[in-house]
This record gives sequence, C-alpha cells and structure tokens, in this order.
Amino acid sequence: MSLSSDWKTAGTVETRHAPQFRLQSVPLRAVTLAEGFWRQRRELNTRRGMPRFLASMEEHGVLDNFRYQSGRKTGQFKQASFISDSDVYKWLEGACWTLVTEDLPELKASVDAVIDEIAAAQGEDGYLATHVPPERRWKGLAGSHELYCLGHLIQAGIAHHRATGEETLLGVARRFADLAVREFGPGKIETPDGHPEVEMALVELFRETGEQSYLDLAGFLLHQQPSEDTYPPLADRDALVGHCVRSGYLCCGGADWYAETGESGIFQTLERLWQDLVQGKMYVTGGVGQRFDGESFGLPYELPNRAYAETCAQIAHAMWAWRMLLLTGQARFADVMELILYNGFLSGVSLSGAEYFYMNPLSAQDYQRSPWFRCNCCPPNIHRTLAMLPGYMFSTSSEGVWVHLYDACEALLTMPDGTVVRLEQQTQYPWEGEVELIVTPAAEVEFTLFLRIPGWAEAAQVTVNGQPVSAAVESGTYVELRRRWQPGDRVQLSLPMPPRVVEPHPRIAEVRGSVALARGPLVYCFESVDSPAAEILDLALAPTDAAGGFTAESEPELLGGVTVLRGTGRAVCSPCAQLDELPLYRSLGSRSLPPRHDVTALAIPYYAWANRGPSAMRVWLPREV
Amino acid sequence: MSLSSDWKTAGTVETRHAPQFRLQSVPLRAVTLAEGFWRQRRELNTRRGMPRFLASMEEHGVLDNFRYQSGRKTGQFKQASFISDSDVYKWLEGACWTLVTEDLPELKASVDAVIDEIAAAQGEDGYLATHVPPERRWKGLAGSHELYCLGHLIQAGIAHHRATGEETLLGVARRFADLAVREFGPGKIETPDGHPEVEMALVELFRETGEQSYLDLAGFLLHQQPSEDTYPPLADRDALVGHCVRSGYLCCGGADWYAETGESGIFQTLERLWQDLVQGKMYVTGGVGQRFDGESFGLPYELPNRAYAETCAQIAHAMWAWRMLLLTGQARFADVMELILYNGFLSGVSLSGAEYFYMNPLSAQDYQRSPWFRCNCCPPNIHRTLAMLPGYMFSTSSEGVWVHLYDACEALLTMPDGTVVRLEQQTQYPWEGEVELIVTPAAEVEFTLFLRIPGWAEAAQVTVNGQPVSAAVESGTYVELRRRWQPGDRVQLSLPMPPRVVEPHPRIAEVRGSVALARGPLVYCFESVDSPAAEILDLALAPTDAAGGFTAESEPELLGGVTVLRGTGRAVCSPCAQLDELPLYRSLGSRSLPPRHDVTALAIPYYAWANRGPSAMRVWLPREV
Repeated sequence: MSLSSDWKTAGTVETRHAPQFRLQSVPLRAVTLAEGFWRQRRELNTRRGMPRFLASMEEHGVLDNFRYQSGRKTGQFKQASFISDSDVYKWLEGACWTLVTEDLPELKASVDAVIDEIAAAQGEDGYLATHVPPERRWKGLAGSHELYCLGHLIQAGIAHHRATGEETLLGVARRFADLAVREFGPGKIETPDGHPEVEMALVELFRETGEQSYLDLAGFLLHQQPSEDTYPPLADRDALVGHCVRSGYLCCGGADWYAETGESGIFQTLERLWQDLVQGKMYVTGGVGQRFDGESFGLPYELPNRAYAETCAQIAHAMWAWRMLLLTGQARFADVMELILYNGFLSGVSLSGAEYFYMNPLSAQDYQRSPWFRCNCCPPNIHRTLAMLPGYMFSTSSEGVWVHLYDACEALLTMPDGTVVRLEQQTQYPWEGEVELIVTPAAEVEFTLFLRIPGWAEAAQVTVNGQPVSAAVESGTYVELRRRWQPGDRVQLSLPMPPRVVEPHPRIAEVRGSVALARGPLVYCFESVDSPAAEILDLALAPTDAAGGFTAESEPELLGGVTVLRGTGRAVCSPCAQLDELPLYRSLGSRSLPPRHDVTALAIPYYAWANRGPSAMRVWLPREV
Repeated sequence: MSLSSDWKTAGTVETRHAPQFRLQSVPLRAVTLAEGFWRQRRELNTRRGMPRFLASMEEHGVLDNFRYQSGRKTGQFKQASFISDSDVYKWLEGACWTLVTEDLPELKASVDAVIDEIAAAQGEDGYLATHVPPERRWKGLAGSHELYCLGHLIQAGIAHHRATGEETLLGVARRFADLAVREFGPGKIETPDGHPEVEMALVELFRETGEQSYLDLAGFLLHQQPSEDTYPPLADRDALVGHCVRSGYLCCGGADWYAETGESGIFQTLERLWQDLVQGKMYVTGGVGQRFDGESFGLPYELPNRAYAETCAQIAHAMWAWRMLLLTGQARFADVMELILYNGFLSGVSLSGAEYFYMNPLSAQDYQRSPWFRCNCCPPNIHRTLAMLPGYMFSTSSEGVWVHLYDACEALLTMPDGTVVRLEQQTQYPWEGEVELIVTPAAEVEFTLFLRIPGWAEAAQVTVNGQPVSAAVESGTYVELRRRWQPGDRVQLSLPMPPRVVEPHPRIAEVRGSVALARGPLVYCFESVDSPAAEILDLALAPTDAAGGFTAESEPELLGGVTVLRGTGRAVCSPCAQLDELPLYRSLGSRSLPPRHDVTALAIPYYAWANRGPSAMRVWLPREV
C-alpha cells in the first residue's frame, strides 16, 4: 500500500495535487476553535451527540449486523433501514475528524472497537454490505445503496487515517474499493448505484493513495446514468432534478472530478446547476428540498413553507458549495455555505446536541426533533459536519491566506510555498460583526490576506493597525489585503449587523406578500412560545424601513445565549373568532377583515427553534401594507 | 335470498327506509339528461372512457387475474397494483349505472362477460381477492385492501341489480360479505381494513337485502380503529387526518350508518369534520388533499398550489357531501358537491373522455393526463361518478321536490306519498344562469318546490308564471315555492353570473396576495397557451371591482365549447431577464421591480385545462395593488 505520507497536513478534502483547485484546504489540526459559536456546538457534538448515537446504534442492533456477518454473533440483519452500515461509517468519520483536534481516549477506544467489528465482517473478496444477502450482490443497485455504503466507508477510512495515521479502516475501504474496481467499469457492471456518494469518496481515495484506478472508477460512474431514476448523467443535466441528497453528492463528485481532470464540460454543468439552485430552488434558510415526494427538487420558485429540506440535503449542498469555493475563490459560494451552516443545517440538531430534525420546515406546528429515525442518515451526517467544520473556515493559496468564516479561533496556516502564518480571530460573531484578526508570521513576509465580506453585509469597514485600507471592500467579495505583514499586525473587520427585512422573489407564490427577518448570517423566525399576545398564524409585520423597526438584543440566558430581534408586529384579536369564521374563499371586497393592532414581536434565530417544547413557527410573516 | 323488490325505484343510495334521511334520493331512471353540460360528458364516458378502459384492463392482465383464480387460464397474479380487482368492480358499477338509462347491448354483453369471470373466480367459501395468496388471507389487513375490494364488489353488485334486476353479481358480493360477517366482529377478527370503503357498501347491502348482519358489521368496523394508521375511530376524530380517500369513504360510511341508526355522536363528528374541511382544508376548486406524503390531509390553511388533490378524494368528498345533503336538506352541502363536480372532479378527465388526472394541482407546468396508471383507482371512479351523476340532481321529501343541480334534463319524480310530477329543466347552465323549470304534475297538487340558490349567486330572482315569488331568495339556501302546482307551470330562475374575483383567507400563506377568477359554479384558470404576451409565471391581476374588469365570452369552438373570461392582466416583459436575474431573496427596498404593463388575459374553466398539449397553468394570480 502506497499511502500519502502527508496525512497530517491534509484537509478533509486533499487539494494539494489537484490542478484545478485555486484554493488549498487547511488541515483540521491547523485550526483551534476558541470560546465562540461553533466550539460550543462542536463540543456538544463530541460530548453528547456522538456518544449517545453510538449507544443507540448498539441498542438498535446496527452494530450487530456486522457481528452477524463476521460470525461473532448469531442472527440476521434486522434494521428497518438498509443504509444503517453507512450510519456507522458516518459516525466513525465524525469521530475521527474530532480526534484530529481532541485528545479523547474514550472516543478513540470506541472508534477502534467499531473498526474492529467492521473489519471482521468484511468478505474474503472485500465485499461489505450487511444488508445484502450473497445472492443479491450488485443485483438491485437501483435501491441497494451498496456503492453508497462503500463511499461512506471510504470517507471514514480516510478520516481515520488522517486523524491517526492508522491504516486499518482505510485498508478495509480499499479492499472493498478494489473489488468495485474489478467489477465495475466499461464492459463490466456499467450501472452505478441509485444513490451517488461513492464518486467523491473514490476521488478522495485516489488522493489519499495515489491509486489511479479509483479516480478512473469515479469518472466512469460519474458519466453513467444513475440506475434508479430517469435523469441523465450529471454532465447532461440542465437543471437540478430528483432526490436532493443524491444530486448534491453527485455535484460534489463532479467538482472533485473536475478538480483532478479539468474536464470543462463538468464545470459548466456545475455552474448551470448552481445557478438553478440559487435562482429558484433554495429556501431563505439555505434549505434544499422542496418536495416530500421523492425527497426531491421541484420547479424553480416552487418553495412551499412546509419544506422538506432534509438535513442531509443541506449538508450535501454545503459540501458542494465548499468545493466550488475551493475551485474558484468566489465569495458567492462561501455565502451559501455560511447561510446553510448557520441556518438550514444547524436547525437539524437540538441545543442539547442529541436530537435531530430530518426535515427543516419554514412553517410548522408542533414539529419536534427526535434522537433516532428509521432512516437515520441525518444524525451522523450532522456529527461529521460539525467535526469537520473548522476545516471550512480558512484556505491558503499561492497568493496568501483566505478567511471564509468568522468565529473565535486560532489557526496556523501554511501557504503552498511553506510560509507559515498564525492567525487569531477575536470575535463574537455571529452575534456581533466586529472581528479582530491578529496576523503573526514567523517573520515579516508579503502575502495577501483575503477576507470575505459576506453578501449580506452593507457598509463593511476594514482597518489594518487602525488605518483604513485602500482595497475595495464590497459585499459578496473578498477584500484583498496585500502587504508585508509583521508579527502582531491587527486587522479590524467591521460588519454592521442591523436587523434586515428580507423580501422574496415575486415568483414565489408561497411567500408572496410576506417578509422574513435576518441579521448577519442568521435567519430569524417567530415561535409561538414567544408570542403570548398574537397567534403566530395571524401575526403580520408592517416594516417601514430596511430594519423593519426591529432592534437586536442580546439574551445570554435564552436558548443557550442568542441575540433576539424585538420589534412591533401587527396582530388580530387572539384567538380570533372573526378570522376563524371567515370563509376560506370569498368574493373580492365582500368581507372586511378584523383590524390589526400593534403587539410586541420577538424573533429568535431559526436554528434555535423547537427547543422549548411543542410550538408553532413561522419564518415568513405577511407584510401589512 | 330476500331482495328488495324496489330495485327499479331505488336511487344509487337507497334512502327510503333509513329514518334519518330528510330527503329521498331519486332513481337514475327517473332523470333523462337533455342536450346540456353533463350529458355531453356522460356520453363520452359511455362511448369512449369505459370501453377503452375495459380494453386496457384486458391488455394489462387485470381480468386475467380472475381467470388464474378460476383456472380458466394458467398463470399468476401480475398487477403492479394490488387493488386492481377493485378497478374492475368500479368499472362494472359505472357500466351498470349507465345501463339504467341507456340501452346498450354491447356494454351489457361486456358487463355479463366480466361478471362471469368474477363469479367463476370466487372461492367455495365466498372469498375473492385475486392478489392475496391463500396463506395471507386477512393476515395483512393494514395494506391488503381485502375489505376495500369487497366494498367495491358490493357496490357493483348493487348497481348491477338496480340496473337489471339480475342477482348474479349481487350474489357473488353477498357470498363474500357473508364470509366477512362470519369472520369479522367482536371476538373474531376485530381489525378493519386499512382502507375504509366497505362500511358504506355494507350499509347499502343491508338496504338492498334487508339482512341485518351487514348493517351490524358496518357499524362494528366503523367503530374500530383502522389498522393502517394511528388515527382513532371515526367517532373520536376532532379533525380530518390521514389519507384523504380513506377519510372521505369513512365519512360516507358514517353518514350511512347514522341514517340507519340515528347514533347522534357520529353525526356530531361528521359536522365537526365537515367544518374542518370547508374552513381550512379544501382548495378553491373543491380539491381535497394537501399533501403528497401519505396522500393526506395537512394542517388547516396549509394549501400549497402544487396540490395533491387526488381525483378519488374529490369523488369521496362529493359522495359525503351528497349524503350530508340527504340527511339535512341544507344547501351548504349541495354547494360543495357542485363545486367539486364542476371543478376538482371534472378536471380529472380529459375532454376526449379517456385520459385522466390522478392529481389535480392548482399550479403546474407540463403536467399531462394519462390513460393508465400503475395505481388505477381514479379512472373507474370517474366512470362510476359520471354514470351516477344524474341521481345527484334531484330529491324528493314529504314536503315536495328538491332541485340541487341545474342542467338541461327531464325528470319524473315520485314523492313519498306517491304524487308524481314531471319536471323539465331548460337551461344553458353552467354557461348561463337562466333556468326555466316546467312543472307538470298529473293533476293540480300542492307541494313545495325547493330550488337551490347557490352560495356564489348574488341577486338571484325567481318567478312563477312570470310573477316574482314572495318566498325568500337567498344565496346558500333553498327557495321554497309552496303552491298548488298546475300542469305546465313555469318557474324562471335567474342566477346572475358576472365574473367573480375570489380572495383567499388571509391565513393561507400559499396564495396570500393573490386572487382567482370564477363564474357561476366554475373556477377559472390561466393557461400558458392562451398567454402569448405574458408568461403565466409573471402574470398579475389588478382588479378594481368584484368582476375584476373581466367579461364572459362564449367560445363554442374552444375546448368543446366554453365560456371564457377575457380581461386585462398585468405583465412584465416576457421573457423577463430582469426578473430571471432578481435574487431569490433581497433586502427590503434594495431593488426595484420591473414595471408591469397591461396585456389581454384570458381565463378558461379549470376543468378544461391541459387539453391542448403541454402548458403551464395557474389558478391563483398575484394581485397587483
């Protein structure tokens, strides 16, 4: 086995030998979260989310499925969901990315034990899918998720290797991947799995091992028509279609393939699909997934408030956004990644860290998170995403150092030419828009510090050592601070965060005449527990300016510490018999509506809803004009 | 077998011995449709819809399933859908109700041949479900639809008997029903089918045969918890929940049970559920079914434009509305029945009469009807509904004669005391609101003529022999014309039909700030083939009065002859790059929208859309204020 010796310095995506990546990922171990927003969540993920989920997997027999296979236990595969192998792999991946930055002997022991069970279950020829009886191998690829499970196994194996330098799980993954290489390809099995995922994993396995056949198989699968559906291969798609998670993972695979090969048609496709996403198929929360039927994309501008918006779909699209960012260095991709992470993704996990949403609606009643699902893809996907999140914050390039996300942390970044710079972020982001960056190269050195000015930020300001910079500071771009940096240089970034009233595109029927609130990267919502005077159902807003008359107020005791938006809403009597009795449909002008009156309205960050018992929630409220 | 000798005079629901029916149904043979709206559709149903569907059922092996069972053919059940037996029964029911009024030897021969195959397939003990292997009998009731199929078999048997006086199919149905009576009940199998339907069928079988055990079994099943879901028995429901067709049929069964037994709790439940329907869960088209997932009801006011609105759900709710009307004589139920029949139901079949919608959305792009579905419940349900529709038009009661629906026809109505009156309707309804009724009793006789004044009708007028009546003429009620009627008395009903702009309840987020058009009982829509100057996606209306500036224009050559609504819409440039490029979400006031300009806008009846090739369609358009 010829493994890259660079495991300690690889990011979660290894960009260094891929010609098309403009930016380089940074290794997780280069970033240390300080007391801030994401550290709190990543800690909960480590201390509560992952241990509890492992215990639940044991309780539900998910690990027993491997033991039945190895003969260590007698019994038969018994999960309701046939993808439960992949749940284990995603959990492992999350645990391993966590071990990169945390010294946790207990977690390490759990990882070792789980890997041992997996390795023992592998077949002589490398095959490993506990839910597929021998005679069904590769026979039902449309629904079997065999390659999908292989993909997650590969990603777990790579994470384990990059975390520990150990090759046990990576070896298991390679043996299964080698089998796939032998059995899939031109003139062999030519139909890919119904659920893309293995493509990006195979590219990464090529990066990790240098073995060309993995890249070749990724490319082959990527250019075939997926077996489950009637949709064309990726390169032939004009629009986002079908199952959102499948589509998102396939786009990640396409981006990784393009990064290695420079096949320009694939990149043009990805650009086209990206436009389709942001111009008509993404919720204001960054949610992806308009339809319940098929967990699928809908038409452009079809965005019902009872969104499906599966947590996994948000994760897949954040992963895709990050890859597009690495390829291009364009801030529009970082904007979407940030939007998803703080909103549509983060709502997927409770403040307690161990209960999850599968769907992330924009309007709901009594919808609650759950610690366990029959189809359990989302929880361990959250685990691995929170574990690898520090890797999304920075990049390097030949030009210098890039800051994509703001949060209290310290990073030791190595540029491609070997220049090392220590970067410290001091900030209360996302609650406050002031970010101080302390730049500490080993010695004075010239490079560009690229600071992302979020698309939502108006009138951002940047100073270096107190002096305004001459570089252009425009929202939705990176401000480029090129200079000879001295140890201890201080950059002050100021991103004003007034509450923002957001209007939807006039083509979105489902939110026509409505507005939403946002502040900084956070989208807000109204929850019935905060609205004693007005049922959420009948609450309206009458914004007269861009901030809607709302003010931001820090509430350290509320919901783990949040900044709320307080302002004036317009309510009818509550409960309002007059509205209850109003006919569902009436002739224009035939009835007068009950008058509305002012009430105090309180909005909380969307990610924090449904943490105080059953409630009704709305992101969009009607605009009273 | 002790059969009612009244088969010739029974309606499709036999009301005469049920103490709680205030109104009596009239037999189909009492009503003869003249050249008018429904005759055209019923003819197409008879001449094209049913013959083609029978041929398709043969092609797809649906009838072979019975032959495999009887041994007349060798093979195994092979339908993708396990409910295909019920498709045959519904088709038969439609054919038999058609034979009541039409002399069609070829159709009669087809009916006889199909019945012969069914009878031969029945087991010794009466069991008949071609999709259930012997060892699975009653074992998977949650999903097996065994009693559901029995229900449709019973309804077909009753229709066959009431059409022809023959007892062959009714005998098959009774033998299966007798088996169910032996095997289901307290202390026996206590779990009903997952899909209600058999309840109303068993009540009707009791009415047809006088056999109490059928009524008892209906009542038993009705009071149990259906096995598929977690919803309570009917009487314990506070709101409409779950699968819409199941719920609708269960409510029909509840109404029939109440009609026989007077169990008041059931009636209170039905009233409660009805309010839930009309106050928050019905589309403006009469469509029922908000959610694709589970083909189910959603929350009140959750009414996305991509409605599921399964054709069968509309049919089930029209059947329920009719039963509520028969129980109460209240016009509000007839209003909903009419709304469904002319809109959400009728859109289910093409103008050619042989292609069908399963879903009936209020906004769509390139959605087309199909002659065949894997789950084929809707087409034969349309067949039987069109066949039995004349029976919905009139009722009698001890007080006199009731007219529920208007269409050119002649009826020979017999009141409970034996008084016979001939009633002729001359009208171009629904295109024009003038209805002339010629009342011809055998001799002068006093009774009340109840004429429905639809809920949508403003300023309706009624004259008798040219003289205005003194009775109250109020929309949403029956005007009661009590007098001594002379042969040849003429009643003139005038229902003004200006175009109506309809506003939605402010709680419906999905159509907030939008309006729809209607005229008379018809809901209208905008289809892209009629909008060369403006994409439907961006078309708006700016109504200044209740008619929205639209005028009704008869178009005899269009869509089989319709009245269109022509007026002025507000369009942006088309295709509009400025709107294409507008961000999906933007800060309030940050962008100005492209100006709109006046265009000619043409609306067609909703039922007639998707008959001119692929198109985009909208029922609701944004209201420009």
